[in-house]
Amino acid sequence: MRLAIVGSGAVGRSVAELAGGYGHTVTALADSGSAAVDTDGIDVAAALERKREDGQVGTADPEDALDGEYDVLVEATPTTLGDAQPGFGHVRTALERDRHAVLGNKGPVAERYDELRDLEAESAGAIRFEAAVGGAIPVLSTVEDFGPDNIVAARGVLNGTANFVLTRMAAEGLDYEHVLAEAQDMGVAEADPSFDVEGTDAALKCVILANVLAQGERTYRLEDAEVEGITDVPGSALELAHEDGRTVRLIGEVSSDGVRVGPRLVSEHGDLAVGGTTNIVQLETDHAGRLNLSGRGAGGPETATAVLSDVGRLPEL
Amino acid sequence: MRLAIVGSGAVGRSVAELAGGYGHTVTALADSGSAAVDTDGIDVAAALERKREDGQVGTADPEDALDGEYDVLVEATPTTLGDAQPGFGHVRTALERDRHAVLGNKGPVAERYDELRDLEAESAGAIRFEAAVGGAIPVLSTVEDFGPDNIVAARGVLNGTANFVLTRMAAEGLDYEHVLAEAQDMGVAEADPSFDVEGTDAALKCVILANVLAQGERTYRLEDAEVEGITDVPGSALELAHEDGRTVRLIGEVSSDGVRVGPRLVSEHGDLAVGGTTNIVQLETDHAGRLNLSGRGAGGPETATAVLSDVGRLPEL
Repeated sequence: MRLAIVGSGAVGRSVAELAGGYGHTVTALADSGSAAVDTDGIDVAAALERKREDGQVGTADPEDALDGEYDVLVEATPTTLGDAQPGFGHVRTALERDRHAVLGNKGPVAERYDELRDLEAESAGAIRFEAAVGGAIPVLSTVEDFGPDNIVAARGVLNGTANFVLTRMAAEGLDYEHVLAEAQDMGVAEADPSFDVEGTDAALKCVILANVLAQGERTYRLEDAEVEGITDVPGSALELAHEDGRTVRLIGEVSSDGVRVGPRLVSEHGDLAVGGTTNIVQLETDHAGRLNLSGRGAGGPETATAVLSDVGRLPEL
Repeated sequence: MRLAIVGSGAVGRSVAELAGGYGHTVTALADSGSAAVDTDGIDVAAALERKREDGQVGTADPEDALDGEYDVLVEATPTTLGDAQPGFGHVRTALERDRHAVLGNKGPVAERYDELRDLEAESAGAIRFEAAVGGAIPVLSTVEDFGPDNIVAARGVLNGTANFVLTRMAAEGLDYEHVLAEAQDMGVAEADPSFDVEGTDAALKCVILANVLAQGERTYRLEDAEVEGITDVPGSALELAHEDGRTVRLIGEVSSDGVRVGPRLVSEHGDLAVGGTTNIVQLETDHAGRLNLSGRGAGGPETATAVLSDVGRLPEL
């Protein structure tokens, strides 16, 4: 397949680097201010070098990436909320051109899911968005193969930054601010960590999962989720939990009751007590009990593998 | 899709019961001595009732199931080794008729993998066999989506009976014979448990995984695996392990070194120390680190969900 990659952050760059190994051709790579476009395939190494040196991937206009020849648009621009622009517009352009769209960007799928599905219904192209939920962990394709009808509920640890902070608080007996600073030094937490530590990122992923499970019966947005982050979890809570063989994790839950994210007590050695930046999703199924899927929920190459798995499941146009 | 189900043990019966809920029609159901066949769809409830009362699912000949009208043959007869008959022959019949075949039966895929792939190459039909490895756990579809090229190694706990016995030995400080007898009383172990406790079942699943990962470069059979079961694990080994924060599990491993199954020390609270009859598969990947997939590795409905997931991934004929 020919891939037009919009977004040259960690995910976009990794998709560009790995695409060839999966047998695909990158015909466009765009960042916010430029693009490299070539119907026969761009020189990915050169474009990434140019990005490193000049801050721009190419000499073409970003619009040229959307207008060019491709089979799959890979939407890897930063997640935005509300109107989810410009990501939503990029996907709409692809679908209206009867092309496929694979999203790593959570915004459009969390905030305008019904509109995306309407556009898809009118298009020869399809949308897939494994990379938007749980990075490398094959959550959505497992739900798809199982049949969303057969999944009763889902829960999990879906934000590695928050999980890392809680893991370190429990392990070292340190308080939140101290561990957050440490995480920022290590690059595990952003300079502005609110998206992760306030639970927004985990909530977006749960909203997406809720939309998939609801199969059009209703549509969820971020505002429909009850969200509490980890910013008020005191170190004492973790010590108290430990004395009872428990610990605290930021858990997202999706069920017929809706979407909830918040700090929860979990068994210290149970499946949900994943450590560090690991993510886990538990699916409760109709005929097969509980399925656990865990692994790396974030990272350039990790998320790229999910994008490329999705590309592999798209039909020829 | 129209399903012809050959084999009316727990798996075959569960597939027959659940197929309608997935939108499929059962056009044939056969046991070793009879069949119920109807191109418009058999009365599944009646056939299962007849099986319970008379020991036979129908009044037709078993051959009629293989000769009838269907899209997918579901091969759910008991696993046999060596020539893997009659299961292999059933699959060959389906492929030679340009029909699909979905296997829960491990025999043909473990013992005659190359021949199956050759038959498939000559057929309009495809073979899938998720149910042969890890029951409800989506191991093979995850490998497929990830790309077998990107999987470096796999390991896991793939036999629930052996795992249950080791779990109970560790928990209760009892010896192997005692716990085995308890497991047999509970129906977790068979009257002749050798297939499970000698590691054969786990080895077959690892051989299948090795065949998938090798992608035709070489073909493995059961005889290529180094296999040691749990029959000689003394209770004292588990006590000693516990004092060191470890326990013992029957672990299957697939790598460029080949296929090995045997009792191994694992961290007591680590991912591989699953409890009871739970199974787990760990995939080591090129770009996304480790993926863990765990859940119920056996059972009628559980394995049926894997069969039906496979049916959902087959193309229209």
